[in-house]
Order: sequence, then structure tokens, then C-alpha cells
Amino acid sequence: MKVVLIGSGNVATHLGGALKTAGHDILQVWSRDADHASALAGILSAASTDNVCDLSDAGDIYILSVADDAIADMASKFPFQDKLLVHTSGTTELDAIKSGSAQTGVFYPLQTFSKQKAVDFRNIPIVVEGSSEAISSLLLSIASDISDKAEIVNSERRKVLHLAAVFACNFSNHLYAIADKILAEQQLNFDLIRPLIAETAAKAQIYPPSQVQTGPAARKDFGTMERHLLYLESKQEWHKIYQVLSESIVNNM
Amino acid sequence: MKVVLIGSGNVATHLGGALKTAGHDILQVWSRDADHASALAGILSAASTDNVCDLSDAGDIYILSVADDAIADMASKFPFQDKLLVHTSGTTELDAIKSGSAQTGVFYPLQTFSKQKAVDFRNIPIVVEGSSEAISSLLLSIASDISDKAEIVNSERRKVLHLAAVFACNFSNHLYAIADKILAEQQLNFDLIRPLIAETAAKAQIYPPSQVQTGPAARKDFGTMERHLLYLESKQEWHKIYQVLSESIVNNM
Repeated sequence: MKVVLIGSGNVATHLGGALKTAGHDILQVWSRDADHASALAGILSAASTDNVCDLSDAGDIYILSVADDAIADMASKFPFQDKLLVHTSGTTELDAIKSGSAQTGVFYPLQTFSKQKAVDFRNIPIVVEGSSEAISSLLLSIASDISDKAEIVNSERRKVLHLAAVFACNFSNHLYAIADKILAEQQLNFDLIRPLIAETAAKAQIYPPSQVQTGPAARKDFGTMERHLLYLESKQEWHKIYQVLSESIVNNM
Repeated sequence: MKVVLIGSGNVATHLGGALKTAGHDILQVWSRDADHASALAGILSAASTDNVCDLSDAGDIYILSVADDAIADMASKFPFQDKLLVHTSGTTELDAIKSGSAQTGVFYPLQTFSKQKAVDFRNIPIVVEGSSEAISSLLLSIASDISDKAEIVNSERRKVLHLAAVFACNFSNHLYAIADKILAEQQLNFDLIRPLIAETAAKAQIYPPSQVQTGPAARKDFGTMERHLLYLESKQEWHKIYQVLSESIVNNM
């Protein structure tokens, strides 16, 4: 397939790389920032542009991978009525891009990407949806080229999937960041709890997480919880997070 | 060393196993539940008892590994004034066991243990503290027998370490559990986000977590956050958690 990437962020970068490795042809990269477009285009041996009017009309699929709140606007500027236009957002409905083309789809990889770190796409679930059954099948086939875990999931359920991912991934990472700051204040190294973070995630690969919950709240050890809250008294934000999460754990034990 | 385990929970089980593997001799296991005591004693080729008065006086070190709020009480019942008594709690001061013996210490492995899952102790940081410098050194040497990451850390800083671990590990696991439930309500499989959980923890092994924060709150994508909160409206507890953590992420970007 001839692929045009509209966007040059983390998702576009990793997805473009995986599609190229799987034998697809990346024709062109668009970014509103010409330097970003040409940087990614260089890696993928593609052309680049910062002007939507210059998008190549030779693409078989146009992958719109921009910030969620820019998707609808970019789709409305898409210059081809009959070209397959897909977005990569977990939380945006398929209909959000229907102003762009009659043929639309969603191609959502369930992974957190950062530019710095390579990822193995084969283990990344990709959920797809098409504006027709034929498009759904085509997207499923492209997704299967790069992932062993491709699945058709409609817009409503995909949004729930994304919400669950926010809890499990974005929120957990923020808790790691808070732990890092708590340690730094006492000149303790984050390395001390890195194995704990790895083990907690490793357990979740095997067990239902609610069955392996540990810690003061799980033990209803109110003495320890009170001492922790006392220590956090001057840090309103962390105090609140500790309280809300501990209460929720206690309620579920 | 001749080791007596006072307690038969997850920490006692894994610590006892690691010490035995390292060549130490587990003499005896105490538990208030005679069956639990003899079950663990069986694994460790040790004697067992459910009576503190029957604790062997032949031990070199007595490892008190019970629920945090039972530590002081158990220590007060410890029958030997001159035997080395250590607890394994991240959050309990060394002084909490001084009624038990003149020779006390802390031996705190920074890991989350569940009975079902084997762990590699060599990568688990163990922080130790003794009531004298000689005891600190002895405990550091025992900890080094089973771990490559043994360190002397005093009570005050150890409590902060434990607090950070609660954020990074216990709270993260609870977020995984919530994600699991959110998915289950829509008949979506938790397997879909397991790779995401693994990748998030893997990134934290390499990068400072605040530098790799992603998601709607990190992007200040208030439209997505509002839609998520709307979806969670009937789930007060999850709604609150989403709100508090998103606010905290937004404040830190």
C-alpha cells in the first residue's frame, strides 16, 4: 500500500516505521512544521510537505495522526473526496473525519509512544474500524501486517478502551513521577523503586490486578495510612491523591 | 546464620526461601496459625510453632515479618533479651521493637510479594538499619547475600521510601484494577491494555517518568477529559480519581 502520513508526532513516527518495515511504501509526510515533516520523511525515505494542498494524490491510505482536538479541522481540509482517510485516535469517533472523505476509518494502536524508545509492534494491539465492511477488512489486514493483535472494534467501545488505557498507563506514569519527586526530596534514588514498578506491571500481565493488590490500604492498615497522610500534609495535591486512591482501595477490599 | 522466621506471610515466605537458597539455615517458623507455620516450615525444612514461648533460643537472627500494626505487640512478647530481632516493614520505626530485645534492626525488601509468583531477589533493593553500627554491618552483609542492591537507610528515610512505593506500586495496581473493570463492563479483554502497562513500566526503568508523561491531561486535551468524565458520571469513585489525577498532571505540565 502507498501510505501518506498526515502528522509527524510519536504515533506517526512509530506507525510509519512499522508500516515501512512491513513492506508498505511511505510516499509523503505532512506536518504543519516543515522541519518536523522533512525529519520524519528522511527516516522513512518519503517526500515531505507542510501544505495540505500539496498532499500527494497517489496514496492508497492517508493516516491522520495529529492531536485529538485537531483531527476534525485537519479532516475538513483533506483535499480528496474518495481517498481512504483514517485517524489513529482512541477517543475520537469515526464520524469526526467524515467531512474529509467518503471513505474513512480508524487505526488505533494501543500503546504509549515516545520518540526516544523503540517498540515492538507485533505485541501492540491495534483496533480498527471502517466506514464500510470492506474498509474494516482492509484496515484489519494492514493492521495484521504489523501486529499479531489486530481487532475490529467500533467507536463506542474504542472510547472505553482508551479511557481504560488512561487509567492504566497515563495515570500510573504520573504516580511514578510523584514517587520520583517524593524520593528526590530525601535524596533517595528512584532506582530503589524501579524493580517494584517492573514487578507490579509484570504481575498484571499474569493475574487480574484486583487479586494481587497489596499495601497499607489493601491491609486496611489505617495507622500507616494516617502517618503517610501526615507526612504529605504540606503537599495538598499528593495528599489528595493518596486519600482518594486509598479510600477506593479500602472500598474494594 | 541460623534464622527464625516470626510470621508466615508473603514477605516471610519469599525472604525465607531466598535466605535458605543463599545457604542460611532456617531453624523455625512461627505463625499464630499452626497450619500456616507448618506449611512454610515444610517448604524451608524448618520446625514450626504457633506459640511465642516455644521460639527456639538457637537462632542468630529473628525476622519478625507480620502486619505492621502487629509488630510492636509481637516484639513485646519476644522472649529473648539479647537476640537480634529485626522487622521487615518499610513504615515502622526501628524503635517500635526495642521492647523486644536490646539488639534490633530493620531488613526491608523493596518489593511487592504475592505467594503465587516467584521473584528474583538479586534485583530487589533491601534497605537495612541496626540499633548499633555492628548490627547495621551484619544486616548489610546478610542482605548482600541475597541481593545486589543492599543499602543502609535510617528509619526516617525508609518511611519516605515506603510512601513512594505505595504511590508507584500499590496505587498503580489499583488503577490497573479499575481499568480491568471499565473494560469488563464493555466485554473488552484486559489483554488489550496489558502491553501498554508493560511498556509504561518499561519506560520508567529508563526515563524519569515526568519526562515521558502522555495522555489527554499531558496534552491539556480538555475535550477528551470532559468526555471521559461524562462517561464516568455514574461511577463516583472512578470519576473522582480521574479528576484528581488529571488535574495533578495538568498542573505539572
